[in-house]
Amino acid sequence: MHARRHPLVTPALLILGIARATIAQPADLVVTNARIYTVDGARPVAAAMAVRDGRVLFVGDERGALALKGGATRVVDLQGHTVLPGLVDAHGHLLGLGLALRNVDLVGTTSYDEVVQRVAARAREAPAGSWIVGRGWDQNDWGDTRFPTHEALSRAVPDHPVVLERVDGHAVLANAAAMRAAAVTARTRDPEGGRLERDASGAPTGVFVDNAMAIIDRVVPQPSREEQRAALKGAIAEAHRWGLVGVHDPGEPRAVIELMEDMAAKGELDLRTYVMIADDSAALAYYFARGPRVALNDGRLWERAVKLYADGALGSRGAALLEPYADDPKNSGLLVSAPAHIQDVATRALKAGFQVNTHAIGDRGNRLVLDAYEKALAAVPVADHRFRIEHAQILNHDDIPRFAALGVIPSMQASHQTSDMYWAANRLGAARLLGAYAWRSLLDAGSVVPNGSDFPVEQVNPLISFHAAVSRQDARNWPAGGWLPEQRMTRGEALKSMTLWPAFAAFQERDMGSLTPGKYADFVVLDRDIMRVPDDQILGTRVLSTWMGGRVVYEAK
Amino acid sequence: MHARRHPLVTPALLILGIARATIAQPADLVVTNARIYTVDGARPVAAAMAVRDGRVLFVGDERGALALKGGATRVVDLQGHTVLPGLVDAHGHLLGLGLALRNVDLVGTTSYDEVVQRVAARAREAPAGSWIVGRGWDQNDWGDTRFPTHEALSRAVPDHPVVLERVDGHAVLANAAAMRAAAVTARTRDPEGGRLERDASGAPTGVFVDNAMAIIDRVVPQPSREEQRAALKGAIAEAHRWGLVGVHDPGEPRAVIELMEDMAAKGELDLRTYVMIADDSAALAYYFARGPRVALNDGRLWERAVKLYADGALGSRGAALLEPYADDPKNSGLLVSAPAHIQDVATRALKAGFQVNTHAIGDRGNRLVLDAYEKALAAVPVADHRFRIEHAQILNHDDIPRFAALGVIPSMQASHQTSDMYWAANRLGAARLLGAYAWRSLLDAGSVVPNGSDFPVEQVNPLISFHAAVSRQDARNWPAGGWLPEQRMTRGEALKSMTLWPAFAAFQERDMGSLTPGKYADFVVLDRDIMRVPDDQILGTRVLSTWMGGRVVYEAK
Repeated sequence: MHARRHPLVTPALLILGIARATIAQPADLVVTNARIYTVDGARPVAAAMAVRDGRVLFVGDERGALALKGGATRVVDLQGHTVLPGLVDAHGHLLGLGLALRNVDLVGTTSYDEVVQRVAARAREAPAGSWIVGRGWDQNDWGDTRFPTHEALSRAVPDHPVVLERVDGHAVLANAAAMRAAAVTARTRDPEGGRLERDASGAPTGVFVDNAMAIIDRVVPQPSREEQRAALKGAIAEAHRWGLVGVHDPGEPRAVIELMEDMAAKGELDLRTYVMIADDSAALAYYFARGPRVALNDGRLWERAVKLYADGALGSRGAALLEPYADDPKNSGLLVSAPAHIQDVATRALKAGFQVNTHAIGDRGNRLVLDAYEKALAAVPVADHRFRIEHAQILNHDDIPRFAALGVIPSMQASHQTSDMYWAANRLGAARLLGAYAWRSLLDAGSVVPNGSDFPVEQVNPLISFHAAVSRQDARNWPAGGWLPEQRMTRGEALKSMTLWPAFAAFQERDMGSLTPGKYADFVVLDRDIMRVPDDQILGTRVLSTWMGGRVVYEAK
Repeated sequence: MHARRHPLVTPALLILGIARATIAQPADLVVTNARIYTVDGARPVAAAMAVRDGRVLFVGDERGALALKGGATRVVDLQGHTVLPGLVDAHGHLLGLGLALRNVDLVGTTSYDEVVQRVAARAREAPAGSWIVGRGWDQNDWGDTRFPTHEALSRAVPDHPVVLERVDGHAVLANAAAMRAAAVTARTRDPEGGRLERDASGAPTGVFVDNAMAIIDRVVPQPSREEQRAALKGAIAEAHRWGLVGVHDPGEPRAVIELMEDMAAKGELDLRTYVMIADDSAALAYYFARGPRVALNDGRLWERAVKLYADGALGSRGAALLEPYADDPKNSGLLVSAPAHIQDVATRALKAGFQVNTHAIGDRGNRLVLDAYEKALAAVPVADHRFRIEHAQILNHDDIPRFAALGVIPSMQASHQTSDMYWAANRLGAARLLGAYAWRSLLDAGSVVPNGSDFPVEQVNPLISFHAAVSRQDARNWPAGGWLPEQRMTRGEALKSMTLWPAFAAFQERDMGSLTPGKYADFVVLDRDIMRVPDDQILGTRVLSTWMGGRVVYEAK
């Protein structure tokens, strides 16, 4: 006889079970009248599903699902709506989102004046002296696309320290009160891996890039643990609202990870959270010694990955390029970490059984990370490491096949392509664009491409990245035909990029990523069939409900 | 902590294992330098694979696979060739193939004269009085497409009884000696579900259709058990030669199944054999009482399905149609079983935990089977029954969505489409062709479509059905653009139709159908990339080697 034992009820046993007078173990939930895209190649489309103990029990036809109905089974008629496996954002800052939801929202501002007005409005309601934090400005969307300077902001808001993070998280704008609090003067020097914007006299103009952001950030009062808890709860509720059941959080310090553990133990972390450990020598030593932990508290928290940074971002010209910026010929970007550091952490992570996921935007940043990973893997040959590069945004042609050859996963955010396309050619010139946001090339070379939003850098709605992945168009469906459209994904690939490929990139494919018997019963109900509507109707889709482990976590009013 | 336990080494443990000085459990086999189409959505393409204990251990990059190499590991460089999961024929008669390999092969004959010559040549080497058995004639391929009559054969071969099966297995041609042995005269009556072709005087002309075949068959000396064993071994070797690692054998009597059990126990059944129990009341009673058995002898034999017959075949006008044959207006085909019988067996099978797979070719045959299944399922509601219709060849428009709605799997043979297309329009007329060989419509309606050859009715080479599925063209790539080309599958679907979908149709998807860690290490190496070469180059592909459980079972010279 067959020696292996499966953890699940086998189909034969299932059938035998049914032959009895009553169903020994009926489903907890049956959903019917749906168009279910399972992302399971063995049974791609289905009309109904049954759930027991938080796991998928059956996917198929309605009669089949209803055969598993018992006296206490909840039956939900989905009225013909579309069902997908619960979506996962493979790169979203959960605490950052939670705090951003409490901050002044500057996303979509079309002028510096508008930024100043929004901050001034908040200042009128806040006690004098308290800090005002905002996020989301992008001078590339303004009439004047130079970095702003603090004067207008300082005049309008003189009595509150103000710090406003750029949309990409790679620069902040501080007002005069904030710079006073941080003791910033013309004599303040640029730190390694960062710079202060300055006027002709050398005086700081208020913009602090990459590692220089810390000069301001360190004087901003940190949210308390309970404020963080509330922020995380807010972020989780927001994620559910958009159909997300999981997130890969790209880097949190030990204190936040321990808060997540506490929340998971208390049933407050209602999102499958694959948290990466932020690069801090004490934290890395601690977690490497302790070893990986997975699927804590019924699949709520995974601690088995490390987040490193190689370079900065493209918008702030911090991305490390092999050749200078087309629009800044003396600048080739910044390295945030030394390659030797990435190699060292990667080597230790391989020995300790951890995954390493490194931020790299520029072609030089990406190449250095691939090189560092290659050296670490030569020293500690591990088969199934699944190391990742986060963003993998600008790639040299020669490096594209190296991802598959090294088994390194490019974890991309399609929404960045549509946010950056208006000015990316200015930064890079035409030739380098061929390797920019090049998910089709990576797929064709044999990689899988988990997708994400980088929230709160971009909006939470995962369909923005789904739409961008398949259309290479922005929310207004511009440009016609798509930007570098030969890099489009198919709908099937885009769906995998938000389900099965994030699961693979987090070693979770046996429990997540498809609606397959035995996996978590996580799914989302949409009011449109995003696999079949025209491209320009994708973003009009509404999430009707989000389910985790067979339980509703969000339902549209 | 995560409560479920997986049968496999988890990635985390794998990584930890590697961190030790030596690999605790190295791979038995590593293959490198390949283009592997895994049919696993989580990791669709790979370059290398590692195998341990007959199962896939790792699929990915070369360095990763080689990290699992130990001192005794065999490493095979596949020189850039294409690797697919081991192919499975979801409908092939294994013993029939083995016997056919010993019989006079009449496939491809272009005239009745050629048939007579081939049989006469064999008769010259066979002792007088011994039976000569042949198979594979198809009068539709001859100048005169009427059924042949026995006289020319009887004149050329007077001293040996001869019985020649038609290509579709739904008619035989007997010579005079064979009819004498069977005591056939003008007074012999047509049995229910069958008929004797007759001349104007009422005398049998030698052709026996459907249930009438038994009149001759019952006097043909049966091969001995040892002849059957030798025939099965020959069929298995032939299957391996074409890249097959498994077959769904559509109907064998208990004696053959018990021979297969004996062979499996002795290590002689080196093919994953999903055998269906032929419709015989004693056999069904025996197996239903005993219950399903699966994956016997390390995944060699499955006994959990029943094969029934609803109607005949199209070529011999035995397929049951809703309206008469276009080229035989008084004939609507034959029912081989009463619908009540199908319903009765299906009901008992549901109670006993068996799958039911019923041959149905005509639109009436298919509808009656769907109706019978529906009634059985209403009486015994089983969730995951996976009942099948074998062939599902001519479908009424209204019945196409019923497959998915009832969870009934259409098990089709794409090669039949390209064999039948020359004359199918004559039999059916244009309107009914819209539901003929309509795999695209079935896929779009939410079904999966396992593919097969129906060997020895068609050739064993599974790429014939792969090619037909994607091109709707014959081996000479006729007609240009394909026959009813809107019914084409994609290459990805066609690959699933020979791997993952047969696995699903046999409840084997946890062990077979893709190259996924934990599944059987069954694969085939091809000299061409059938996923990328033009349609007209698919059939030139050669199988270089076939592997089961990580062991070579065929290697090209």
